[in-house]
Amino acid sequence: MVSFRKVAIIGLGLLGGSIGLAIRAHLPGITSTGYDIDPAVRQRATERELADRICETAEEAVTGADLVILCVPVGAMGSVASLIAPVLSPDALVSDVGSSKRTISRALAEALPGHDVIPAHPVAGTEDSGPDAGFATLFHQRWCIVTPPEGADAGKLAALVAFWQALGATVDTMDPEHHDRVLAVTSHIPHLIAYTIVGTASDLEEVTRSEVIKYSAGGFRDFTRIAASDPTMWRDVFLHNRDAVLEMLDRFLTDLALMREAIRASDGETMFDWFTRTREIRRSIVAIGQDDSRPDFGRKDHR
Amino acid sequence: MVSFRKVAIIGLGLLGGSIGLAIRAHLPGITSTGYDIDPAVRQRATERELADRICETAEEAVTGADLVILCVPVGAMGSVASLIAPVLSPDALVSDVGSSKRTISRALAEALPGHDVIPAHPVAGTEDSGPDAGFATLFHQRWCIVTPPEGADAGKLAALVAFWQALGATVDTMDPEHHDRVLAVTSHIPHLIAYTIVGTASDLEEVTRSEVIKYSAGGFRDFTRIAASDPTMWRDVFLHNRDAVLEMLDRFLTDLALMREAIRASDGETMFDWFTRTREIRRSIVAIGQDDSRPDFGRKDHR
Repeated sequence: MVSFRKVAIIGLGLLGGSIGLAIRAHLPGITSTGYDIDPAVRQRATERELADRICETAEEAVTGADLVILCVPVGAMGSVASLIAPVLSPDALVSDVGSSKRTISRALAEALPGHDVIPAHPVAGTEDSGPDAGFATLFHQRWCIVTPPEGADAGKLAALVAFWQALGATVDTMDPEHHDRVLAVTSHIPHLIAYTIVGTASDLEEVTRSEVIKYSAGGFRDFTRIAASDPTMWRDVFLHNRDAVLEMLDRFLTDLALMREAIRASDGETMFDWFTRTREIRRSIVAIGQDDSRPDFGRKDHR
Repeated sequence: MVSFRKVAIIGLGLLGGSIGLAIRAHLPGITSTGYDIDPAVRQRATERELADRICETAEEAVTGADLVILCVPVGAMGSVASLIAPVLSPDALVSDVGSSKRTISRALAEALPGHDVIPAHPVAGTEDSGPDAGFATLFHQRWCIVTPPEGADAGKLAALVAFWQALGATVDTMDPEHHDRVLAVTSHIPHLIAYTIVGTASDLEEVTRSEVIKYSAGGFRDFTRIAASDPTMWRDVFLHNRDAVLEMLDRFLTDLALMREAIRASDGETMFDWFTRTREIRRSIVAIGQDDSRPDFGRKDHR
């Protein structure tokens, strides 16, 4: 019971492009419009047909739409919402795909008084970005977290949930504050750590950059994947989810200090106990289908 | 010009088992024997035919061998070497696959006076361990670092290099101290960080373990793979490469403190600059064939 008829996608990178392609694949009854601030992205989006019609302005794209999905960096959400506010249909629902929800929920509510706003976050992505990165199955078997404000229109919420389910996602509902804590640990801190260690490794004097690259199969290469993610998007995530990220980062730093002390003191028992219980988490992630069970994620150089 | 005729493999987990299978696949002229301290592993190794003959004792396995490869945890190298010393052929070469080289080089030299010892480290692995984990192509397109002591027999060094090349690896030579610094950054610190963050995430009160598992696709799941590696092996690596690991860990902690301060101070420029330059490393790793170029490592849920 997806009741939307015309969906406007603002921002045509990995997420926006994938939504457009997924609508065509899974919801042929819906027409889509798309807009991106970058003319080169609009050109490429037209060639890849990321939406039925790629528009020259955001206002043109949202005119007549009953669902508008903002797929721009977290820091741009408020200003884009202000830009489209005057031309929005009174009964349109505005949503987004941003990776932090507390500040976005506030920015969208402020920019769109009197409009229906239900923020969302599909927990899906790859290390690629831009108009060539999207694909129709990005949301298959992924979670989409919806953070409806108090008093959200029940019919529109149900329609938004049905929309994401039609794209292949499983939908969960959370308040924005809890979302931001959960994502701080499952996504933001891992990205921060990966960015940091990749930078550290490239700055060493004793070990050359070419050695780091050559011997990366020992574990380092796993970190480089997420450290190749879009810099603008991630800068904005850390600026907008600062409190939860700092809180979780300090937990991590406390634990890392414990492990550092275990190594310094040659305390093998503490290490062994810690390393044993972390195995279980991996098994659970594979068991519920949130990762590939083949060794090395099924990389093509194996088996 | 692989001049070995009989290779003994001591320890039949992921590495030892893969060597046995790779010998059969690539060096049919060589006969192999295998031994593991665990009877259940010997049983499974017999069923999988990880070596031509699985022996009931280490001494039996090494008798008559001209190459002995120790594939046991780093902490067990010295005692296993002492055990086999009395029955080693005088002209046998002893090597290993340990992930740290400084302490192993010393332990093997002390346990095997008068014998030829050339330590080695194939930089290859998966998160799986045990006798079911090995496969013949594990070393394809991977590096093997050989750390010959001063005055090592040139003919035996050449034969060991040729052996690893025949198994599909590219061989580099290094001194043990430099090896340990390089691997600290490309492998040991990434594992330590991954183990730590996975432990941190599973201990939170505000975010449940089931939420961490459900939403792991946001980045966390990449870390869980290496945090599922063998606990005994990794405890020993940290105990034996303590100095280099602590040195590199402190570099990382310094950089992480810089990133923490950038987030606290809402310094988006510092973050953006850092996140931009880390992309280049990923491109280089993919360009030289040390990782899969497909999005998400080519995980099966994508495209």
